[in-house]
Amino acid sequence: MSRPRGPAQVAAYVEAGDERSLRAALCRLLEPDEWTNEVDRVVGVCGIVDAFARLLDPRAAGHGYLAAGLGPRLDELDVASDLGRGAARGARFVIPGDEEWPERLDLLPRPPYGLWVRGEHHLAELTDRSVAVIGSRASSAYGERTAGQLTAGLALRGWTVVSGGAYGIDAAAHRAALAVPTPTVAVLASGVDVPYPVAHTSLIERIAAEGLVVSEQPPGDAPRQLRFLARNRIVAALTRGTVVVEAGPRSGTATTARQAGSLGRAVMVVPGPVDAWASRGCHELLRKHPDYRLVASAEHVVEEVGLIGIDLAPEVRGPARTRDGLKINTRRVLDAVPAMTAIPPGRLVVSAGMDEQAVALALRDLQRMGLVESTPAGVRLSASERARRCAPREGAWGTIGG
Amino acid sequence: MSRPRGPAQVAAYVEAGDERSLRAALCRLLEPDEWTNEVDRVVGVCGIVDAFARLLDPRAAGHGYLAAGLGPRLDELDVASDLGRGAARGARFVIPGDEEWPERLDLLPRPPYGLWVRGEHHLAELTDRSVAVIGSRASSAYGERTAGQLTAGLALRGWTVVSGGAYGIDAAAHRAALAVPTPTVAVLASGVDVPYPVAHTSLIERIAAEGLVVSEQPPGDAPRQLRFLARNRIVAALTRGTVVVEAGPRSGTATTARQAGSLGRAVMVVPGPVDAWASRGCHELLRKHPDYRLVASAEHVVEEVGLIGIDLAPEVRGPARTRDGLKINTRRVLDAVPAMTAIPPGRLVVSAGMDEQAVALALRDLQRMGLVESTPAGVRLSASERARRCAPREGAWGTIGG
Repeated sequence: MSRPRGPAQVAAYVEAGDERSLRAALCRLLEPDEWTNEVDRVVGVCGIVDAFARLLDPRAAGHGYLAAGLGPRLDELDVASDLGRGAARGARFVIPGDEEWPERLDLLPRPPYGLWVRGEHHLAELTDRSVAVIGSRASSAYGERTAGQLTAGLALRGWTVVSGGAYGIDAAAHRAALAVPTPTVAVLASGVDVPYPVAHTSLIERIAAEGLVVSEQPPGDAPRQLRFLARNRIVAALTRGTVVVEAGPRSGTATTARQAGSLGRAVMVVPGPVDAWASRGCHELLRKHPDYRLVASAEHVVEEVGLIGIDLAPEVRGPARTRDGLKINTRRVLDAVPAMTAIPPGRLVVSAGMDEQAVALALRDLQRMGLVESTPAGVRLSASERARRCAPREGAWGTIGG
Repeated sequence: MSRPRGPAQVAAYVEAGDERSLRAALCRLLEPDEWTNEVDRVVGVCGIVDAFARLLDPRAAGHGYLAAGLGPRLDELDVASDLGRGAARGARFVIPGDEEWPERLDLLPRPPYGLWVRGEHHLAELTDRSVAVIGSRASSAYGERTAGQLTAGLALRGWTVVSGGAYGIDAAAHRAALAVPTPTVAVLASGVDVPYPVAHTSLIERIAAEGLVVSEQPPGDAPRQLRFLARNRIVAALTRGTVVVEAGPRSGTATTARQAGSLGRAVMVVPGPVDAWASRGCHELLRKHPDYRLVASAEHVVEEVGLIGIDLAPEVRGPARTRDGLKINTRRVLDAVPAMTAIPPGRLVVSAGMDEQAVALALRDLQRMGLVESTPAGVRLSASERARRCAPREGAWGTIGG
């Protein structure tokens, strides 16, 4: 009954050209920070199938280096078991080229070989408009409140908040997103089925149920110091920008900020009281990095990461096509937005006759589709939608796209 | 018994070439913001005595414009009365060219014609190493505490704090300086004998007694809106940098910051909680002006305004000459600083056998003279003084300069 494992299993994958399984093997065989491993280099040059073929062929050039690079892990390898364990825990293994793979990750100097993903959302879509909200585990009440307010503000503007599932700021961000409610993404340094910290077991389960839990580590893996650093690069790469809410002096958060900056992502920092220990690192970041931007609200964050054509001036889409698929609640909220003026969200609840949460969710969809935008005075139609609704040739409001 | 006043009085000053009195006259005749006044222009071109000569001579070119520029104030003018009232209140009138005149003011596009000064300190010397600490009148407890901490830290490092004597941050800064104790400078928009706000009468009297109260307005003048703006330019010009501690949205404090920036002075901004109204203006300043620097401590401020040769690496001065004039207390504290190591200020109190206030004052003098410097570990001798004290050829410590 025993399945092949180790080199025999790999040989079968090489034979079948099964890149996905070989990528899962690499997630198990290499630590994510092993930039200098010979296998990592050969994969970069020859591709994954050829790299493994050389590894298995004692006559191939470089075989010795490759075998030495992997060491004893190769004999223990059982990818089928990893995939089975992942499937049992509702996790799929997503690799470059998959429709769900976020192309943004390919900008990393060393992208993950694949990501284990738990949750029903589409990874690329959910993280397309996303922001990392991160910070100190030793957070203050001020920091947690601020992380929560920023996250809620971002969620209401249609942005997904990504964080690391840790104590402190990470947890405050995830919890605020779940409270909106809106899906949130936790990137772990352990396997997606190994909640860390253990005290966050139920939080991470909720994130998996309502958002996504993501990891480069195979199922069952424990977190390690270097895996945290490697995880941070994924948080930085997956998002359009990183907001540091609190950081003590010499904080590890600074590393994630630096990685985000080196990938060309916006790095945003929340200030705090100058006598607060937990804001000291934030102030140092702002003092040392003129390209990091001080942010004090969700508006400020959107100003940094917002897309021309969606957040600033929504691009014109085919009106009928856009509105065809609207859910009834979404349509109802769209109907409730006046043609030419802004309406405060509070009045929109009355105007649409729906509760706050339902309105917030509908607005999220409408913003994502570029049909409405948020202004200081409230919600209003986007320029294109306003033009469309007011265009005489298009006829009365109710006659289109319905 | 009636003295001449109005044009007759001015004629006598012109005859005598009494520039000081004519400058006092201009402080009375022109509002400080009257950049466009014809008199101001002619003074800039011809000098003050010639400008008044033209004003008084109906045959002189431009006489009509000048007379119209001054209007009815000329007839009411009584400079002798201003000078007498000033003297009675212990105020002197300092003009460019006086030894006490801060040359830094001449960088202003339109320097004051003169400054009324109350207090025993030397205006130029006291403001040579000075920083403006300003902010909202509607300050929070956080802002006042921070203004106080920054001011005390600056005072202990030998820096004079200049502010506007107003409610809120200004008052917190002045009070902290007086508590150190260290002299502080209040620049008023009213006459130096007209405390404003009235509730600050005793505060401003104390500043006059222990520091300096300064104004461009003649004695007896009330503050006016435009005089506040004009006063702010003096605060900006008199100091090496301006620290904004708190500012609401669209705060007037931003004007002073801008003026400081346009004069090439360091503009420093203290952050605060993002949900605090009183810090909102500060965060906007930091977001809009990449050249403004976030500061969270007195060390940060000194890093911006400190002088190479004094704050960073004290310039070598003739040791005997520097130490000749030391007061006994100052010398005692200098003796108590160890030759090669730093000593915490608390231990210095014991080591010198003097109370905290006396030690702080002595340290201020010693820092100003470049004999000691402050480090994270405490007070230590400056490099030059250390070299001097340890140089074998200079002989034993007690034998020099005593």
